[in-house]
Amino acid sequence: MGQKFICMDIGGSKILGAVVDENNEILHRVKKKTKAELGTEAVDSRIKEVIEELIAESKIDREDIRAIGAGAPGVIDTDKGTVLYAPNIQWKDHPLGRIIEEAYKVPFVVGNDVNVGVLGEWKYGAARGYSHALGIFVGTGIGGGIIIDNKLFTGSKFTGAEVGHMTLNTEGPLCNCGQRGCLEAYASKIAITREIKAGLHMGVESSLAEAVENKEVIKSGALKKAINEGDKLALSALDRAVYYLAAGAGNLINIFNPEVLVLGGGVMEALEEDIIPLFNKYITRFAWPTMLSQVKIKPSELKDDAIIYGARALINERLGF
Amino acid sequence: MGQKFICMDIGGSKILGAVVDENNEILHRVKKKTKAELGTEAVDSRIKEVIEELIAESKIDREDIRAIGAGAPGVIDTDKGTVLYAPNIQWKDHPLGRIIEEAYKVPFVVGNDVNVGVLGEWKYGAARGYSHALGIFVGTGIGGGIIIDNKLFTGSKFTGAEVGHMTLNTEGPLCNCGQRGCLEAYASKIAITREIKAGLHMGVESSLAEAVENKEVIKSGALKKAINEGDKLALSALDRAVYYLAAGAGNLINIFNPEVLVLGGGVMEALEEDIIPLFNKYITRFAWPTMLSQVKIKPSELKDDAIIYGARALINERLGF
Repeated sequence: MGQKFICMDIGGSKILGAVVDENNEILHRVKKKTKAELGTEAVDSRIKEVIEELIAESKIDREDIRAIGAGAPGVIDTDKGTVLYAPNIQWKDHPLGRIIEEAYKVPFVVGNDVNVGVLGEWKYGAARGYSHALGIFVGTGIGGGIIIDNKLFTGSKFTGAEVGHMTLNTEGPLCNCGQRGCLEAYASKIAITREIKAGLHMGVESSLAEAVENKEVIKSGALKKAINEGDKLALSALDRAVYYLAAGAGNLINIFNPEVLVLGGGVMEALEEDIIPLFNKYITRFAWPTMLSQVKIKPSELKDDAIIYGARALINERLGF
Repeated sequence: MGQKFICMDIGGSKILGAVVDENNEILHRVKKKTKAELGTEAVDSRIKEVIEELIAESKIDREDIRAIGAGAPGVIDTDKGTVLYAPNIQWKDHPLGRIIEEAYKVPFVVGNDVNVGVLGEWKYGAARGYSHALGIFVGTGIGGGIIIDNKLFTGSKFTGAEVGHMTLNTEGPLCNCGQRGCLEAYASKIAITREIKAGLHMGVESSLAEAVENKEVIKSGALKKAINEGDKLALSALDRAVYYLAAGAGNLINIFNPEVLVLGGGVMEALEEDIIPLFNKYITRFAWPTMLSQVKIKPSELKDDAIIYGARALINERLGF
């Protein structure tokens, strides 16, 4: 009864799916591991399994599904529904749109996950009602999205808004992208973990030794616990990350002059109370006073569901319902 | 006979005016010192003097003037024709549009000078035919402009695209804007001059001692001459400036994913042959390979007339003729 939408957050490690109704309420969720290591076709099958489970468990009528939307990592041709390049999932020129549309006979739309997350925040979350919005999501890596004049900006070839790879120091630390001094190399969970490991290696006392041992990425919860306990190494690693996050955000504020900046992602969710005061202190150093006075800085409202709601928003943007 | 446009480049040191005909040919030019030190009203009078001389000397019929357009430095509300803030000319909330329209009874449009210059390159110059264009102008300072989807991007409050004040090193040299490590603090003529002075101070032999003595900004011609002669200090100062110009351009390419990047301004005009090979070498270090493969890097075509043609383009954009 009533129109339904399947909205998905396809990530390198997990696939999250949700049934969303005509009032934009999430009726049911399903989460599965992506298992990207099994190859492209296996991932396609797992996406379909998530959709099938969603339909079965929520007991919705298949006929009521109006559209399927998704956010996925990498470079995505939103016009064609093709994933041009997503190294996390081993996709290259992958016609995800065609595959899903053939299987379910409903329209499918897909966009870059972080872009879609910002679209979600703009349509249903913290950036609602603004015409110019900027979103930065801090997790394992750092991604972002930009709304200009009530429209998601994707660059001329769907590869724009790579805010995580803005150079903040021309001779800074090496980034996973091969360049140096990127925002992501300073302020992502990978960078925070590296900083904590370096401190431990130098003999700084910290409760975090176990939490980072043999790990590339520390769990946000473990970091939060150490910070609550006043662990000096954790505090200094976070301080440094937020300093650079503010440097990156300052650059983007000076360029885009947005009305709102939404800060999201796993690290923000776990450490919002610790990050926001630091961020507000450091941003005055990097954003021009005029620009800064014109932008509201807000934490994500949709949290873990940003990409799910973003997929719903993308359906609305692209298909009109 | 035929419609005419008065197009102006209002700068901190000079006011350049031109009569442009319906075929976008420049019929006549007038140039006057701005004399900003005489105050706001004096500058308004000098703008009118330039317009009067243009009309008198070109012998056009006053009735044929369809519109007046201008580029001016600072933050400009293009909708209202008001200069919100232009420290160079001591303008603050200055209703330039109202003043010119009352005097000449024709519509007047005005935009930020560098933004308008990029609009000119996009409509009539090096970026013609592209939907997504980026322009960086290197002169005494550094400014830029961005065309997104065939539209000049100005941010939510007309203060966007401040590309000269992008941080390239969080702890870099102090910039005139009060922040550190901005593109302008590394790659502008002021920065190049400062670098040459520092070298001379350290005893590096160079023919440039006289050219920078008691000067904040070296003349582009003097720099060009020293470079042609193989002056090592001049070469190393330029190399450093272009390295950082590439760092800034790389950041912008990764964010905007443009189809074309136009490099302009006084330094580029004088030293294009020296800058372009260096720029092409360094840009590979800062722009992602995919993005770089999608962008054409071109020198300005309109040179000194970029803002004049930009004012003509702005008339067309805003008024439709």
